Amino acid sequence: MQIGIIGLGRMGGNISVRLSRHDHKVVVYDRDAGVVSKIADSAHGTPSNGLKDLVGKLDAPRTVWVMLPAGKITEDTIGELSTILEKGDTIIDGGNTFYKDDIRRAKELSEKGINYIDVGTSGGVHGLDRGYCMMIGGSKETVDRLDPIFAALAPGKGEIEETKGREKFDPRAEQGYLHCGPAGSGHFVKMVHNGIEYGMMQAYAEGFDIMRNKNSGDLPEDQRFDLNMADIAEVWRRGSVVSSWLLDLCANALAQNITLSNYTGEVADSGEGRWTIEAAIEEAVPAPVLTSSLFARFRSRSGNNYGEKLLSAMRFQFGGHVEQHDVEHKHGAGVSEVKG
Amino acid sequence: MQIGIIGLGRMGGNISVRLSRHDHKVVVYDRDAGVVSKIADSAHGTPSNGLKDLVGKLDAPRTVWVMLPAGKITEDTIGELSTILEKGDTIIDGGNTFYKDDIRRAKELSEKGINYIDVGTSGGVHGLDRGYCMMIGGSKETVDRLDPIFAALAPGKGEIEETKGREKFDPRAEQGYLHCGPAGSGHFVKMVHNGIEYGMMQAYAEGFDIMRNKNSGDLPEDQRFDLNMADIAEVWRRGSVVSSWLLDLCANALAQNITLSNYTGEVADSGEGRWTIEAAIEEAVPAPVLTSSLFARFRSRSGNNYGEKLLSAMRFQFGGHVEQHDVEHKHGAGVSEVKG
Amino acid sequence: MQIGIIGLGRMGGNISVRLSRHDHKVVVYDRDAGVVSKIADSAHGTPSNGLKDLVGKLDAPRTVWVMLPAGKITEDTIGELSTILEKGDTIIDGGNTFYKDDIRRAKELSEKGINYIDVGTSGGVHGLDRGYCMMIGGSKETVDRLDPIFAALAPGKGEIEETKGREKFDPRAEQGYLHCGPAGSGHFVKMVHNGIEYGMMQAYAEGFDIMRNKNSGDLPEDQRFDLNMADIAEVWRRGSVVSSWLLDLCANALAQNITLSNYTGEVADSGEGRWTIEAAIEEAVPAPVLTSSLFARFRSRSGNNYGEKLLSAMRFQFGGHVEQHDVEHKHGAGVSEVKG
Amino acid sequence: MQIGIIGLGRMGGNISVRLSRHDHKVVVYDRDAGVVSKIADSAHGTPSNGLKDLVGKLDAPRTVWVMLPAGKITEDTIGELSTILEKGDTIIDGGNTFYKDDIRRAKELSEKGINYIDVGTSGGVHGLDRGYCMMIGGSKETVDRLDPIFAALAPGKGEIEETKGREKFDPRAEQGYLHCGPAGSGHFVKMVHNGIEYGMMQAYAEGFDIMRNKNSGDLPEDQRFDLNMADIAEVWRRGSVVSSWLLDLCANALAQNITLSNYTGEVADSGEGRWTIEAAIEEAVPAPVLTSSLFARFRSRSGNNYGEKLLSAMRFQFGGHVEQHDVEHKHGAGVSEVKG
Repeated sequence: MQIGIIGLGRMGGNISVRLSRHDHKVVVYDRDAGVVSKIADSAHGTPSNGLKDLVGKLDAPRTVWVMLPAGKITEDTIGELSTILEKGDTIIDGGNTFYKDDIRRAKELSEKGINYIDVGTSGGVHGLDRGYCMMIGGSKETVDRLDPIFAALAPGKGEIEETKGREKFDPRAEQGYLHCGPAGSGHFVKMVHNGIEYGMMQAYAEGFDIMRNKNSGDLPEDQRFDLNMADIAEVWRRGSVVSSWLLDLCANALAQNITLSNYTGEVADSGEGRWTIEAAIEEAVPAPVLTSSLFARFRSRSGNNYGEKLLSAMRFQFGGHVEQHDVEHKHGAGVSEVKG
Repeated sequence: MQIGIIGLGRMGGNISVRLSRHDHKVVVYDRDAGVVSKIADSAHGTPSNGLKDLVGKLDAPRTVWVMLPAGKITEDTIGELSTILEKGDTIIDGGNTFYKDDIRRAKELSEKGINYIDVGTSGGVHGLDRGYCMMIGGSKETVDRLDPIFAALAPGKGEIEETKGREKFDPRAEQGYLHCGPAGSGHFVKMVHNGIEYGMMQAYAEGFDIMRNKNSGDLPEDQRFDLNMADIAEVWRRGSVVSSWLLDLCANALAQNITLSNYTGEVADSGEGRWTIEAAIEEAVPAPVLTSSLFARFRSRSGNNYGEKLLSAMRFQFGGHVEQHDVEHKHGAGVSEVKG
Repeated sequence: MQIGIIGLGRMGGNISVRLSRHDHKVVVYDRDAGVVSKIADSAHGTPSNGLKDLVGKLDAPRTVWVMLPAGKITEDTIGELSTILEKGDTIIDGGNTFYKDDIRRAKELSEKGINYIDVGTSGGVHGLDRGYCMMIGGSKETVDRLDPIFAALAPGKGEIEETKGREKFDPRAEQGYLHCGPAGSGHFVKMVHNGIEYGMMQAYAEGFDIMRNKNSGDLPEDQRFDLNMADIAEVWRRGSVVSSWLLDLCANALAQNITLSNYTGEVADSGEGRWTIEAAIEEAVPAPVLTSSLFARFRSRSGNNYGEKLLSAMRFQFGGHVEQHDVEHKHGAGVSEVKG
Repeated sequence: MQIGIIGLGRMGGNISVRLSRHDHKVVVYDRDAGVVSKIADSAHGTPSNGLKDLVGKLDAPRTVWVMLPAGKITEDTIGELSTILEKGDTIIDGGNTFYKDDIRRAKELSEKGINYIDVGTSGGVHGLDRGYCMMIGGSKETVDRLDPIFAALAPGKGEIEETKGREKFDPRAEQGYLHCGPAGSGHFVKMVHNGIEYGMMQAYAEGFDIMRNKNSGDLPEDQRFDLNMADIAEVWRRGSVVSSWLLDLCANALAQNITLSNYTGEVADSGEGRWTIEAAIEEAVPAPVLTSSLFARFRSRSGNNYGEKLLSAMRFQFGGHVEQHDVEHKHGAGVSEVKG
């Protein structure tokens, strides 16, 4: 099939190339002209110099995949596309848009006869070769029509062991893509996916932190080990119940630099982790692990905050305790004070 | 090699069989004589009718693998073995013993010249065929001597993609077993492994709960989806960053019964989840995700507790609020009251 | 001064009476005519039979205090008032409105020349006698003009010990009311106040739960106490650092029924607890305690949820564990199994 | 009565003085001789230069109050006293000892006929004038005999409003001291008290942090307020449901320095916060708020930890994300990236 791709960063660029490998024809655009010609080249595609030019180079009914950062730039691009495209054309938002924005957009665009599809896309820098896991929202008719696009981008069944008893379920899930429901549902599922990702990452982070500190000179010598984090990550990849792709990534990072000194530890978060918590709150579903994971990221990016200073202040007001910059604190459970 | 196996439950029985498949000779014992003859048969091994009998059927230096529930029964068995075995013999505890007990035992046994090895063993009911991931503590000499046993039980390299840059690390980790350090370190690493497992499980649990509730009739109709949990679990196995063995298990369970009505949701916990938190506290390492996961299991096993009743009581004392058995509560954010 | 009061529930009724005790003149309305005549009587005020009637009985510039549940009914009432009131009049929303709604309303009403004041009101059923703590948002001019109203409702300085060094701060805070800033700021501060309230309540709940379980027959006899919860709550009121009004309420409830068997423990939550978390997320501020408190309430209102069943399911798929309805679970740290 | 006091720090010194004000006779000891003479003077008491000297200056049956930091120094002091004191004498541990140590000590000392009493003491630097809230464990006979000591140290009923329906309960609780049960129960209740204190403190800390950040220049201007933290703390003291002694302390601290720039925010923790969590885990009681509070203190004392670096590492391995020292991160929900 023929498809336009807007936004040729890590994700959009690789998607273009992967589609071309499956004999789809891509017309590509990015605000960086150098990137356009590079990707057009790699993807044996057609370069374009703007939204109008891109749309003009597609045959009706057109399909345009927008692969931009969620937020204003995606919103503006879709807004502009909606004035250029025609009835029967389709916009795909492959970014990490808030699902309620999808619902709104789908409604607005349907008034112009334009189809709107939201695709949550997981796969990172590995997707080019491994394929992308896709969670798709939108009308059944449009999703079915675009099936060859999704099938090309998806990993396919590969050698992953089959789940038993799936005969009665949607076979596309085994190929790595799924029509989740109406507009917004694809990004909703992707949002929760990312929330879970935060939780799993934090579980590993805490576990490795506990093991790393077991090597620490702060502990009494007879309570100390000399554990090798890289070997532990590796052995867990082999038959253990905590094996996962994320653990593979840990093993890679630790084999490269076991102290992780090349990382700041100031961890960014994206909208999806936050929206997942908001969804949980809307539904009155407790989500302590997903929330703790988000908060750990918040805290990782600040120094001692106002709340912590207030804790120090209360301690001083109550018991005359003066908090100190003091590494002894770390393992010392306050034996030097009578308080409370 | 020749080895005695004590405790022929799901784990010990399968370990016996897997060892025999790799041409090791097993002498087996369980307090259930029927199980002894069954496993002796499956493992082409030698049955025994007690610890003395088992020890008597082994050539010095003997190796005895104890595969019993952690706690009193393991402690008693090792105590008894220590009076039967001789200098140069080895006891392996393959259960989920608290690592400080290992340190104590190793010291006590070393006074008799008996070697003590702790092996954290992951693999569950799948280990027979897939092999077991093993985290091993004890003296280098003994661990090296028993290498053929561990190599037989481990999964081996298989087709799992290699981690780059591991040339400088222990090659056994890639086979699925690791000498972690002195006595106790094997169970310490396994303990943290299980802590992480709790966190990962809870991350999936919360995510699927949020998605399941998005289908709920309690939400306004235009905010509701009709998501298929079995398909979502399946699609995430294919190229998504949350793919893992635990997710494979979710996919299996959901394909079998998408409502999960065959499960109570009253989730047991083992000592290792608890000890992981205690280790974190000893080291002053924050572990909110691992702790939340443990607490979620605690709460899953009780009805409304005293603390919750105290919350109701304070609300009544303060604002005259009477808590009701009321499903409307669930999504109703208290619009019927002016409080605070 | 003269003021109209709409909504004569626990809060609005008592506010009317307290205002009348300070020689303010109230015109009152509630959709329940019986309540109107009762409160008009208690407050020596003027009854009215509708918004128009109420407004008609006030002299310009009019002030109308709306004391209704947050949400649609408040929104509708203010909408209707905005068509009846005139330039220079003032609407006060004393309920628990979301502060962003205040900001919007203030802007809309200012176009008609109507002033909008948001008042977060704390005090519960005790406010009639003790007075209400008020957090006020809106224009300085209007807040200053209505000072006699706020001063009458507030507790006043009383015998509470003075904070040192307050000479440079707003003296009204010591009277129990505060002009926090522009529209929305009053409800914002009240919202956070309620978030903190949840956290404090949950801290007590957990502590008493831990003490109550220390009396439990599930513990080994030599680890068991026979603590008296009512006496403990009482003694802490006397010189301990955890003394507070909420603790007074605990002491009352426990003296009345130490088992708390008259409470369900299914704890409602209002919008403010939820919005506090959303504010924290918007600001990237970690709020683990406030969030845990909200989640504990969510969980208190459901039985075993889908997520918990998924945990059971994973355990079964992995290790063949069958979860049981089993009180032994509660304190049994899984000694009957080898898992992981 | 006559009593020996060992340890004349903030707590022990003030206790000596308060006892003397109620006409008890104190014999005092501290390893710092200067402190001994100072406190002997203030308390009109008898100085001593060692444990033997102190014991020699008391009449049988003797009572010795040990007021030292929990841990080795208390343990050693009590050990030494046990060799000096005689049958019928009593040791009081007024520090923050782990309650299981009390149980052990009481048993050991009872074999010598020495009574052991554990007293959890709350009141901080304010106790001298306000009195101390005391939670007492030990035999009824001894506790009753020492009643004049406890009555002198306790705050007494004062002007605190009475709890209704307390006729059937222990009247000492209203005086501010309570015989909780056998040895260990006093420190157990004090331990939970401190756990609750952590939770309440953290609730305030989070709330004020959320309000403080609402003033932040990082937020869009129309979402920003200019809230005064000192005034808010003050107004909440007046009739609000979050009023408490801890809030009084917040108000003091904020009136003195509203930016709290004089505090580091690196918050120490004592053993009791940790032991409370361990007790919760032993009892299988969920305690998310108390645990989160402890973890917040842990995190406040470290920079970016290994776990956080592992999060960064996973993000880089997966999506090529490079974490930056970047204040924009703080409120930017990652709009610059397509990830997951």
